[in-house]
Amino acid sequence: MPKNPQPVYYGEYLSLDQLLTAQNPHSPRYGAEAHDEMLFIIVHQVYELWFKQVLHELRSIHRLFQQPELGDADLYMVGHRLQRVLTIQDLMNDQVGVIETMTPQEFLEFRDYLVPASGFQSVQFKELEIILGLTRGKRIAFDQESFYNRLKPADQEHLEALEQLPSLFDCVDAWLARMPFLEFEDFRFWEHYQAAVTDAFARDEAIIRENSASEEQLAQELATLQSNRSMFEALFDNNRYKDLQKEGAVRLSQSAMLSALFITQYREEPAFQLAFQVITAFAELDEKLTIWRYKHAMMVQRMLGTKIGTGGSSGHDYLRRTTEQNRVFKDFFAMATYLLPKSALPDLPNAVRSELGFARTKRR
Amino acid sequence: MPKNPQPVYYGEYLSLDQLLTAQNPHSPRYGAEAHDEMLFIIVHQVYELWFKQVLHELRSIHRLFQQPELGDADLYMVGHRLQRVLTIQDLMNDQVGVIETMTPQEFLEFRDYLVPASGFQSVQFKELEIILGLTRGKRIAFDQESFYNRLKPADQEHLEALEQLPSLFDCVDAWLARMPFLEFEDFRFWEHYQAAVTDAFARDEAIIRENSASEEQLAQELATLQSNRSMFEALFDNNRYKDLQKEGAVRLSQSAMLSALFITQYREEPAFQLAFQVITAFAELDEKLTIWRYKHAMMVQRMLGTKIGTGGSSGHDYLRRTTEQNRVFKDFFAMATYLLPKSALPDLPNAVRSELGFARTKRR
Amino acid sequence: MPKNPQPVYYGEYLSLDQLLTAQNPHSPRYGAEAHDEMLFIIVHQVYELWFKQVLHELRSIHRLFQQPELGDADLYMVGHRLQRVLTIQDLMNDQVGVIETMTPQEFLEFRDYLVPASGFQSVQFKELEIILGLTRGKRIAFDQESFYNRLKPADQEHLEALEQLPSLFDCVDAWLARMPFLEFEDFRFWEHYQAAVTDAFARDEAIIRENSASEEQLAQELATLQSNRSMFEALFDNNRYKDLQKEGAVRLSQSAMLSALFITQYREEPAFQLAFQVITAFAELDEKLTIWRYKHAMMVQRMLGTKIGTGGSSGHDYLRRTTEQNRVFKDFFAMATYLLPKSALPDLPNAVRSELGFARTKRR
Amino acid sequence: MPKNPQPVYYGEYLSLDQLLTAQNPHSPRYGAEAHDEMLFIIVHQVYELWFKQVLHELRSIHRLFQQPELGDADLYMVGHRLQRVLTIQDLMNDQVGVIETMTPQEFLEFRDYLVPASGFQSVQFKELEIILGLTRGKRIAFDQESFYNRLKPADQEHLEALEQLPSLFDCVDAWLARMPFLEFEDFRFWEHYQAAVTDAFARDEAIIRENSASEEQLAQELATLQSNRSMFEALFDNNRYKDLQKEGAVRLSQSAMLSALFITQYREEPAFQLAFQVITAFAELDEKLTIWRYKHAMMVQRMLGTKIGTGGSSGHDYLRRTTEQNRVFKDFFAMATYLLPKSALPDLPNAVRSELGFARTKRR
Repeated sequence: MPKNPQPVYYGEYLSLDQLLTAQNPHSPRYGAEAHDEMLFIIVHQVYELWFKQVLHELRSIHRLFQQPELGDADLYMVGHRLQRVLTIQDLMNDQVGVIETMTPQEFLEFRDYLVPASGFQSVQFKELEIILGLTRGKRIAFDQESFYNRLKPADQEHLEALEQLPSLFDCVDAWLARMPFLEFEDFRFWEHYQAAVTDAFARDEAIIRENSASEEQLAQELATLQSNRSMFEALFDNNRYKDLQKEGAVRLSQSAMLSALFITQYREEPAFQLAFQVITAFAELDEKLTIWRYKHAMMVQRMLGTKIGTGGSSGHDYLRRTTEQNRVFKDFFAMATYLLPKSALPDLPNAVRSELGFARTKRR
Repeated sequence: MPKNPQPVYYGEYLSLDQLLTAQNPHSPRYGAEAHDEMLFIIVHQVYELWFKQVLHELRSIHRLFQQPELGDADLYMVGHRLQRVLTIQDLMNDQVGVIETMTPQEFLEFRDYLVPASGFQSVQFKELEIILGLTRGKRIAFDQESFYNRLKPADQEHLEALEQLPSLFDCVDAWLARMPFLEFEDFRFWEHYQAAVTDAFARDEAIIRENSASEEQLAQELATLQSNRSMFEALFDNNRYKDLQKEGAVRLSQSAMLSALFITQYREEPAFQLAFQVITAFAELDEKLTIWRYKHAMMVQRMLGTKIGTGGSSGHDYLRRTTEQNRVFKDFFAMATYLLPKSALPDLPNAVRSELGFARTKRR
Repeated sequence: MPKNPQPVYYGEYLSLDQLLTAQNPHSPRYGAEAHDEMLFIIVHQVYELWFKQVLHELRSIHRLFQQPELGDADLYMVGHRLQRVLTIQDLMNDQVGVIETMTPQEFLEFRDYLVPASGFQSVQFKELEIILGLTRGKRIAFDQESFYNRLKPADQEHLEALEQLPSLFDCVDAWLARMPFLEFEDFRFWEHYQAAVTDAFARDEAIIRENSASEEQLAQELATLQSNRSMFEALFDNNRYKDLQKEGAVRLSQSAMLSALFITQYREEPAFQLAFQVITAFAELDEKLTIWRYKHAMMVQRMLGTKIGTGGSSGHDYLRRTTEQNRVFKDFFAMATYLLPKSALPDLPNAVRSELGFARTKRR
Repeated sequence: MPKNPQPVYYGEYLSLDQLLTAQNPHSPRYGAEAHDEMLFIIVHQVYELWFKQVLHELRSIHRLFQQPELGDADLYMVGHRLQRVLTIQDLMNDQVGVIETMTPQEFLEFRDYLVPASGFQSVQFKELEIILGLTRGKRIAFDQESFYNRLKPADQEHLEALEQLPSLFDCVDAWLARMPFLEFEDFRFWEHYQAAVTDAFARDEAIIRENSASEEQLAQELATLQSNRSMFEALFDNNRYKDLQKEGAVRLSQSAMLSALFITQYREEPAFQLAFQVITAFAELDEKLTIWRYKHAMMVQRMLGTKIGTGGSSGHDYLRRTTEQNRVFKDFFAMATYLLPKSALPDLPNAVRSELGFARTKRR
C-alpha cells in the first residue's frame, strides 16, 4: 500500500499530452489537409498499442516458460494471459472494418505522401512474429528476403538479436517434450492407440471408396489418406519423424507431439486440463492471427486493387500468401488428424489416474 | 501531388517513439510492478485515441451543418462520416471485454496508486458529450454538480467555452426545422395523418382492453396510451408543445419534429433518402453510446462491487443512472410512437413528388 | 462404431423439409405480403434454436451438479459447456442488430396481425430463467403477476412444475457451501482477512473524505461505505447474514459466499482454478443476459417508441426495469467489494497448499 | 388493417412445435447419445435459416433489378436490403466461433454416423451462389465436377434450372451498362481521366524503381505494373477488353466497368450516391462471403486436421482454394487500381451536374 502517494490526475496518468499530440498528418505539408489521414494514423497507432500489450503478455508468458519447471500456478497464469491475447485479437480482427470505412478514393488523397513507408516496417509486429517463433527460415521465400531490408539498421539489429533467442514455440515444445507421462508401466497406451488409429484409417478408406464422386477425386483422396497414414507411422519412428521435420511437414519435436496428443486425448484429467487449455489457446492464437492476415490482405486489395502499396510492393497477393504459410502452431491443428473419440480410448488405469490427479481426501 | 517529398519511415510517420513511451505504470514506484497495470493504461489510451477520431469526425460534421445551406454532397459526407463513427462505437463497445480479462483482484494490485484519478476527468469524452448536445442542464442531477469539479481549471474553462457554442443537436434541429416541405399546396398531409394516427390509437386501445392481464396492468397501459395521445396532439398545438419542451418530455423543436416525421414516413423518396440515413445514424449513435455506458457500468460493478472507484465515488450506480437519462437524440426513438405503416399513408401527389425527386430526363 | 449405418443425406439429417417450411407469415392472409415479416419470424426462430441449445447445455450442467459429488472431470465439463453458452450469448447479443435493420415503419406493416402474441410467451426463455434460478418470488413485481397469465394452461403447468425443482443457483450454492476448506487447523485465514478488509475500508474512507466534490456527495459515499462495512461484518455473523438474505440484499448462503470468496482470493491454486473458472462463467452468463435484456429493451423502444407491443403492454419500460433486477448471480459481482489484492493476502501454509494441490511426484 | 383477426399465440405463430422437434441426433441410434451432436445440428440449422433469409432478400433484389427501369425508390430498397444481408453475414461469420467450442474429439463421437452427408449438399447455399452469379463455368475445377454429383436428382434439377436464369451479377452488369452518363457533350471526361491515370502509373513506376528491395522484387513489381497498365488501356479498347474477358481476367462488361468507375469517382453527386452504396454493398457481400469461406476452412482443419470429412473429401484444402477463386464481384475490388484522388479529377461541368442533381428550387 502506498504511503503518501502523489495525487493522480487522469490526463497525466495516461500521458495524454504525449499521446494526443502524436498524430501528425503529412497532407497539410503539401496543401490541403486530407480529412481521412487522421483515421489512417489513429487506426495504425491503435494497432501499435495493442501490439505493445500483446508483447507485454507474450514476454511474461515467455519468462514463465523459461523457468526450469513450470508450476501449476504459473501454468494457470499462462492460460489466463493467453485468453487475454485472444480477446485482443478478436478486437484487432474487427478493427479492419474501421479502416474499411475509408473509400479507396479517400485513401488516394494522401497515399503519395507516405512513400516508401510500409506496414512491413512495424518493428513490434515483427517482434511479435519472432517471439512466437516465426523465424527467418520459416517464412515464405519473398519474406525471407525482404524481412529486414526495409528497416533502419538499429531496428534490424534489434530484431536479429531477438531471432537468436529461443522462441515461445521452442519453449512450448520443450515443455511438452519433458512431460514424463509418456511411459507408464503396465499401461501400453501407445500400442492400443496405434491399433485404434489404424482401424480408423481403414474405415476412412472404405468411406472414400464408397463416396468418391469421380476417379480423379478417388485418387486424390486416397493419396491424402496415404500421406496421413505415413505421417502417423512416423510418429513412432524416430528416423522417419526426423525426415518429416527436415521436409517442413512437421515442426514440433516427436516427444512434444506425442505429449500433445496424449494431453488432448485425456484433457479432462485434472493434471491435463490446464495444459490442454494452453495448447488450445496457442492454436487459437495462430488461427486468429491467420484470419487477421487474411482480412488485412482483403482490405489492401479493396483499397488499392492490384496497385502497389506505399512501400512499393503489390500488397494483396503477397499478404494473401503469408496467411497459410506463416503459421507457427499449425501442428496443433494437424493433430486432429490422429485423434480418437473418447469412446475408442482405453480407460486410464487407476494407478495412472492417481498419478495424474489430486490427492484429495477431503474435497467432495 | 507532392514534389520531392521526404522519404517516410513507418515508425516516424506514426510517431511511435512518442506513442510507445507514453505508458508509465505507477506500481513500480511503490514496489513491485503490477503486471496488469499496462493493460489498464493501454485500454484507456486506446479509448482516448478513438475519442480523438470520433471528435475529428463530429467536428467536421458540425462544420458542415453550420453552413447556411447543407448541399447534397455535404449531406452525403455527413452520412458517410457518421457511419464511420458507428463502426468505431461497435469496436469501443466490444473493447469493454478486453478490460474484463483483468480480474478484480488483479486490479486491486494497483488501484490505490491511482487515487483520485477518474474516468470523469476525460476531457475528450466530455467534449464529445458537449458537442453532441449533452449540456449541463440536460444531465442527471449528480452529474450537473460534479461535471466540472474534478477537473483542472484549464480543462474546466475549455469545456465551459464549448458549452456556449451550438451543439450538433442544435444544428440538426435547425436543419430539420428549416426544411420547406411541411406545407404543400393541395396536399393536406397532416390532416390525413392526424386522422390515421388517431385511428391507430383507437385500435391500440381495443388491443389493450382485450389483452390486459390484470386491472392494474390495464390502468397502467391506458395511462401510457393517454400520454401518447396527448403528446401526439401537442405536435400540432404550439402552446402545448412548448409546455412539453419545458417539462423535458421532448427536446426537438416542433418544426424539426414534424420534418423528421415526414422524412421518416417518406424515406424512400430521393430527396429524403440521405436525410433519413442521417437521422437514423444519429439515433444509432445515441443507442450505441447508451449501450457503452451500460456495459461500462457493468464492468465497474464487476471490478469493484459497490466499493468506491479511484476518484472516490461509487461508480456503478451512478453510471447506470446515466445510461437512460444522458441521451441526446432520444426523440428520434420516441418518434416511432407516431409512425404509420406505408400502406396507411397517402401517396404523395405527383406535383409534390416531382419537387422532391430528381429531374432526370435521361437516366433509366 | 456403427455397423452398416444408413447413408445420410444432409437435408434429411437436418430435417430441412420441416425446418424450412416453418415460416408462415400472416400478412398474406390479410392482403399483400409484408416483405419484412420473414425477417421477423426467422430472427425469432433463430433465438428459439439458440435457447434450445443453451437449455441443452444448462440441463446437462444441472445434472452434473445434482450428483452427490462433483468430480474434477465433471467440473471441467461444467466449465467447458458454460464457455459454449457464453459464446452463444455473444452471438445472441449481436443478433439484436439484425432485427434493427428493419425500420419501425416496416414493422408496422404487419404488427397488427400478431396481436396478442408476445415474446413473454416464449416458454423456452422462461425455462431458461427458471433453471438458472429466477423463480417467481425473485422477479420484479410486474413480472410476478404476469409471468403466467399470458400462457396456455399446458405451458403454465409445465413451468410451474419446473419451479419446484432445485435451480442451478441452488446447486451452485450447495456445491460451494459443502467445500471443506473453510477451516484449516493453524491457518487463521478469516481473522487475518477480516483485519485486512477492515484496513482497506479505512483507506477508502480517507479517500472519500479527501476527494468528495460536495457535502452531499460526501454523505452519500460515506453511507455506501457504511453499508459495505455492515455487509462485510454480516459475513461472519450468522444472524445478521440471515437478515440480509431476508431483505433480499444477498442471495447466496453464508457458507457459499465464504467459499466463493476464498476460491476467488486463491484462484491460482490447482484445486481452485476450475472452480474459479466456473464461478466467473456464471457471473459472465448473468452479465451477458443482462446486456441482452438491455439491448432488447432499446430495440423495442426504437421499433415502437412508447407504443404498446403486440401483446398489449408497453414493452420498453418494463424490459428496462428487468435488466437490473432479474439477475441471478449478482452476488458474484458484489463479492468484488470485499476482495483484497494478492499482496495483502496471507500465503497459504504448506500443509494447506499440499491439501489443495496435486500430489505430483514426477511431473516437472 | 385486419378485420376480426384470429388471436395469435407466440409459439403457434413461430411454428415452434415444428421447429423445435426438427433436431434428431443420430448417435442415440448407435448407442449412447453424443452430447455435442445437438450443437452440430442446431448450428447447421441456424445457418440454413439465415440462408433462407438471405435468399429472401436476394430474390427480392433480383426482382427489382429485372424491371426494365430501376427507379430511385427501388434502388433505395436494394441498398437497404443489401445492408441487411451484410449484417446477417457478420453474424454468420462470428457463428463459426460457436461450432469451434466443440473439440475435435467431441466431434469424433458422432462423425462416423453422418457419412456421407456433407455441407456440399446444402441446396440453399448453392442457390445463394447461383443467384449471385457463381455459375458452373466460374467455379474452380474441382467444384465444377463435384457441384452436382452429391445431390439427389430433384435437388440437382432444381439448381440446374436456376443456372439458366440471369444472375444478380448479370442484372447489376446490365444496370450499370445502360447508364447514359458515359458521354456528355463538351465534357471530355475519359480523355482527361486516361491522362491522369497514365501519370499516376508513371509515378508508381518511379516509386517502385527507388524502393525495391532486390532485383527480383523490382522485376516482379514492374511486371505487375505493366499488367495494370495493359488492363487499363484495354478499358478503352473494345477488342482487347473482350480478350481479357475471355481469359477470365475481368468479368464485368466494358460499359458496366466504365460506369462503375465513373460512379465511384463522383460518388457524392446526388444521382450517384445510391448507386455507389449499392456497388459498395455488393463488394462487401463478396468480401464477407470470402471471409466466411476462409474461417470455415480453418474450422474444418481444426476439427479434422487433414482427415476426410463426412462426405469423403479432404475439406480444408479444397475449401481454402475456393476462397479466392469463387468470387463474383471481384471486379469492384480490382477497380481500385484505376481510381484517382478527388483532387486529380476534373470538376463536373455545371450542365452535367444539373443533369445529375436534384432540381431543387426550394430546399435549403
